[in-house]
Amino acid sequence: MPDAFFRLEAVSGRARAGRLTTDHGVALTPLFMAVGTQGTVKGVTPDQLARAGITVVLGNTYHLMLRPGADTVQALGGLHAMTRWNGPMLTDSGGFQVFSLGELNQVSEEGCTFKNHLDGRDELLTPERSMQVQHKLGADVVMQLDDVPALPATRERTADTMRRSLRWLDRCVAALPARSAQGRRQHLFGIVQGGLDMDLRAESARELVARDLPGYAIGGLSVGETKEQMNTVLDVVTPLLPAEKPRYLMGVGFPEDMLAAIGMGIDMFDCVLPTRCARHSLVFTSRGRLRMKNAAHSADSAPLDPDCSCYTCANFSRGYLRHLIMAGEMLGMTLLTIHNLHFYAGLMAQARQAVLEDRYDGFARDMTARVTAKAP
Amino acid sequence: MPDAFFRLEAVSGRARAGRLTTDHGVALTPLFMAVGTQGTVKGVTPDQLARAGITVVLGNTYHLMLRPGADTVQALGGLHAMTRWNGPMLTDSGGFQVFSLGELNQVSEEGCTFKNHLDGRDELLTPERSMQVQHKLGADVVMQLDDVPALPATRERTADTMRRSLRWLDRCVAALPARSAQGRRQHLFGIVQGGLDMDLRAESARELVARDLPGYAIGGLSVGETKEQMNTVLDVVTPLLPAEKPRYLMGVGFPEDMLAAIGMGIDMFDCVLPTRCARHSLVFTSRGRLRMKNAAHSADSAPLDPDCSCYTCANFSRGYLRHLIMAGEMLGMTLLTIHNLHFYAGLMAQARQAVLEDRYDGFARDMTARVTAKAP
Repeated sequence: MPDAFFRLEAVSGRARAGRLTTDHGVALTPLFMAVGTQGTVKGVTPDQLARAGITVVLGNTYHLMLRPGADTVQALGGLHAMTRWNGPMLTDSGGFQVFSLGELNQVSEEGCTFKNHLDGRDELLTPERSMQVQHKLGADVVMQLDDVPALPATRERTADTMRRSLRWLDRCVAALPARSAQGRRQHLFGIVQGGLDMDLRAESARELVARDLPGYAIGGLSVGETKEQMNTVLDVVTPLLPAEKPRYLMGVGFPEDMLAAIGMGIDMFDCVLPTRCARHSLVFTSRGRLRMKNAAHSADSAPLDPDCSCYTCANFSRGYLRHLIMAGEMLGMTLLTIHNLHFYAGLMAQARQAVLEDRYDGFARDMTARVTAKAP
Repeated sequence: MPDAFFRLEAVSGRARAGRLTTDHGVALTPLFMAVGTQGTVKGVTPDQLARAGITVVLGNTYHLMLRPGADTVQALGGLHAMTRWNGPMLTDSGGFQVFSLGELNQVSEEGCTFKNHLDGRDELLTPERSMQVQHKLGADVVMQLDDVPALPATRERTADTMRRSLRWLDRCVAALPARSAQGRRQHLFGIVQGGLDMDLRAESARELVARDLPGYAIGGLSVGETKEQMNTVLDVVTPLLPAEKPRYLMGVGFPEDMLAAIGMGIDMFDCVLPTRCARHSLVFTSRGRLRMKNAAHSADSAPLDPDCSCYTCANFSRGYLRHLIMAGEMLGMTLLTIHNLHFYAGLMAQARQAVLEDRYDGFARDMTARVTAKAP
């Protein structure tokens, strides 16, 4: 019998340490997933990713279904074989990018009609199409298609879209084949919606839990609400979710936000921040953030972070990295990306260790102060 | 006593196999130097470079003296320490870029006045300044500043600039300190000039040889002349150069041109082709060239070159690489760069082996047919 998909190993307060077991290997939680939108985490090889400590990569269904197309990915062996990422992967539903990137025409009970951002063709994304595409991509975790209201939204609109998301979830469950096109297990996560209305959030969570899914995500956050509002949602939702299933907070975020969310029982994160910030020369360190375009770094022979053991910090000075950035050299973006991902992965590993040693709250307090400090 | 800088190990016809021994290690010839203009070979880490089989990296004095500046490079430990390329390096004089990139105002006996391409400041590049900058950068091989006529040039103009280049060489010899700023040996190469006038080329070569330099370069080629003209120059010049010194053909080139030049006694090459072509999705293989934007590759699960063992060919399909390129992903450029450099380094290693086994001419004939074939 294969290992359970998720195993809870320890708790510290509400913070959790666990283990995901997939057909592409194990990943320890809490974990941060690197975002590999178009079949690559921008600027780094899969080897560099793994050496940075990343264990799970997220692919974007919207981008991949448009280019190179799900059939091409399937012809190239699926997302794992094509990209040579041999560890666990997750794909989103495509819905979020339809709302944020495509020219959205209409959302009906059937699905979302949109013009794709590459060539303007009309496309229809339904729960069934999302599952079909994710089946061909072959990630280990697949996400339901959900309906998200444009903000600000009335309570009625928030309730309507939340309930439509539940109906779409049922269509996803019905449409997802037993195995990926590559013959591997795929675990479907539902997504808790309901905006900032706690009754709706609770209703969404209870309905999802009643469906006994492999995991639960919390969506619709990190879209402009305050940190207090986000924490209130987590405070309401996570106690409603079963302890023995993983919880994934979508699109979050900053180190301090992840530390807070782990403290409220979240296990999984994804965000473009470490990679996008790296490409804009913003660096996360154990002593705060660094803007690498700052002239103060120009002849500095120190590494980005004296406490870091990543390839970048083991080899290169701030002065050289700043030079690469100022000269517009790709290698600068690659090296900062490696560092930021290593920092995120290391933060998760330290959080896990703190849970295992039942000292999470103290750890999170200290670490939050450090990562939000103004770097010298 | 340290090993001689250059040791000739074998010949096959006029083709040569040798060994450069520097304070940063040994490099076997014939060899191809990867161009690292601004302190990085574009898009690849020093680890990736070494694994591609590259043994010597070239840095551009013009770019580095303007940004980050020779003093900054020195403060960061010199070019080797700053870039973490621990093998041999060569820097050019800066002159070629003054002619090709800067807004050249005037060449006088003193040096070249130009506006730098970054901020428009007036700059003066003299033989002494070139040596001072290269002393601070700290490469193992440094190049004399030479004067190159704008083309087409009269015989008189070609003769004047060639003879000025000899006078500048003498100033370079006088100006270069005994050791680099990092305390390492630096080997100064003179440059044979004289355009397409064989008498002037011969005069230039004889004058350089009379100065008993560590090595000799052949400059002013690959600037629009025919392959026959280039070969005629090599045919005249290389027999005038001492067997026990290395010969470097600057700025060449295509695989077939390097094969021909090795056959006429050249040991060293540099060229932006493998790296620049990679960034424009043109790939060199043992079966000809591939244009990776071609739609024929879109679902092709074969590697770029079935005979290649590089990281890219060992892991990734043509279909995936084409996707990365079409999607504008940096990783595509990085992976094609790794492949092209590996191909160039492998070509040199095979040429060396053919010399050691005294079968160079047959090897070069067969290989030239293969690399210039129209790829399927």
